Amino acid sequence: MRIALDAMGGDHAPGPIVAGAIQAVEAEPELRIVLVGDQAQIEPLLPTGGARSRLEVFHSTQVIGMEESPGKAMVRKPDNSIKRCYELLASRKVDGIVSAGNTGAMVAGGHFLKLFLEGVHRPGIAAVLPSAKGPVVLLDVGANIQPKPEHLYQYGLMGSLYARNVLGVASPRIGLMNVGEEQAKGHELYREAHAMLSQGPLRDRFVGNVEGRDLHKGGADVIVCDGFVGNVLLKYCQGVFEFLLGVIQSDLVGKLQTERPLAEQACRELAHRYHYSAYGGAPLLGINGACIICHGSSKERAIMNALLVAARYAKERLSDIIVQELRANPPP
Amino acid sequence: MRIALDAMGGDHAPGPIVAGAIQAVEAEPELRIVLVGDQAQIEPLLPTGGARSRLEVFHSTQVIGMEESPGKAMVRKPDNSIKRCYELLASRKVDGIVSAGNTGAMVAGGHFLKLFLEGVHRPGIAAVLPSAKGPVVLLDVGANIQPKPEHLYQYGLMGSLYARNVLGVASPRIGLMNVGEEQAKGHELYREAHAMLSQGPLRDRFVGNVEGRDLHKGGADVIVCDGFVGNVLLKYCQGVFEFLLGVIQSDLVGKLQTERPLAEQACRELAHRYHYSAYGGAPLLGINGACIICHGSSKERAIMNALLVAARYAKERLSDIIVQELRANPPP
Repeated sequence: MRIALDAMGGDHAPGPIVAGAIQAVEAEPELRIVLVGDQAQIEPLLPTGGARSRLEVFHSTQVIGMEESPGKAMVRKPDNSIKRCYELLASRKVDGIVSAGNTGAMVAGGHFLKLFLEGVHRPGIAAVLPSAKGPVVLLDVGANIQPKPEHLYQYGLMGSLYARNVLGVASPRIGLMNVGEEQAKGHELYREAHAMLSQGPLRDRFVGNVEGRDLHKGGADVIVCDGFVGNVLLKYCQGVFEFLLGVIQSDLVGKLQTERPLAEQACRELAHRYHYSAYGGAPLLGINGACIICHGSSKERAIMNALLVAARYAKERLSDIIVQELRANPPP
Repeated sequence: MRIALDAMGGDHAPGPIVAGAIQAVEAEPELRIVLVGDQAQIEPLLPTGGARSRLEVFHSTQVIGMEESPGKAMVRKPDNSIKRCYELLASRKVDGIVSAGNTGAMVAGGHFLKLFLEGVHRPGIAAVLPSAKGPVVLLDVGANIQPKPEHLYQYGLMGSLYARNVLGVASPRIGLMNVGEEQAKGHELYREAHAMLSQGPLRDRFVGNVEGRDLHKGGADVIVCDGFVGNVLLKYCQGVFEFLLGVIQSDLVGKLQTERPLAEQACRELAHRYHYSAYGGAPLLGINGACIICHGSSKERAIMNALLVAARYAKERLSDIIVQELRANPPP
């Protein structure tokens, strides 16, 4: 598999981004990475032997800043690294792309280059969160803040294929985020999406409405919502983990004497286990090719995991599977 | 102050509900409570001396179940305890009402009896959550799942008055929940609400858009959102606290030997501090009178705190203040 990596994207680029690429090719012998960005900055960061042969540089002179308006920046900066990644994908020179840069630009790039998969109305970003029973895929978390019911339907299907083929969940169950369990709950968008999911070909995988409190219980493997709700929820999730780990640190660990080092170690392990970097970024599902969006503050570990997820995505031919399954399972 | 308490509402009614009432009158000498519900069940639970004189029973024969459709149940069960509470409020026999029963019925009751405050378009439920800098008021959390921009504007104002007069926050800052900090973020509802809050008379109290991750940081004292987002977020908040405390219990506390009892005690204290019962229920702001909605699983402590909040609400004459401030601060 060949994956293009936006070497200039994110708060820490290019150092830890390139380091993550080196780790990824060392971990996955079949992986080749095209580092897209300023050659003068990237070249000195590359190793001399071994994995070097599977790391290639594609020079690009512009970067879209984290705060720039994505649509405008795409036009104003024609040589930006995200656009170049997408062009490599469009010409099939790579099987997937990874960036920790401007999320909006990653979403805009797909629209700009018309790289939607056949049958997909609007791509959606899928975040992977922990639950008591394993990973949970929450989507959309921000690509589509005012979706139509059929978009949510497609998110259910695409999310379950991602859960099965990339995360290894045997038979993913789909839930619809809502304000109550009864099918008539929520406003029109959610009521219509519920009808599509419960009455159409996905009905056997659909467990109905789920509520916020169910997310970490693992009653559904894929939870569908609009991009506004999902974005608020995902960012809240990051914030609450930080808040609670801080409280645990000060009000529990801080009270211990002899066993404090042990507790501190356990705290670090928990923080590590539930850190977003463990999940390898969020795929933008519906793009023709693996497209992984990483958190802006991603370092080596997050980039490496995202590249490995992109590699698995490509190896599993998830794009082809999504097209086939969308065709085989139209909404009722 | 006189507060009507729905003695039949919630998963544990009437035992712990009545017990909470007894605790509340013992804690607040000026408080009188009207227990609304089945006299035969309530009377035996009352004390014989002391606080008994400030506890009164108002007999009602029907209860709206937790899963019943609120609108229909209001009509089908004319003698239900929530409706009777509202009628006592409408006739000014009480200054406020408290219920741990069907939340939808509490919202519907206000519509049914037309008990909105002058100038209020749609009441909203305000939840109080912890942050690094003190309590944060999040509203609406489910009364109004498809609001208009002016509703969000009013929630900002009402929430800040509640924070100031009941929670004791000196100069509450209002934030708008959104998917990014820039003012153009979000869909139309949020863009219009942002314009109203930033350009109108509340502009000095408005800190702009906030994101999910900011909630527990305490950058805003009042966070406004639509009832769908707020409901998902509130329930998620409850779920994630449970999930993380469970993980801490098993993967941190469980690894300790000699200091495990100390850590377990700290864990219990944290669970107690951040349990919803500490915050005394969620006010339905915009009703003419204090109207506090408690979690269905509320026991003594939650009911007592909710009654004390209702008493404070009445004592501060918050309803009058809301009417005055809405009149003085119309949206631009």
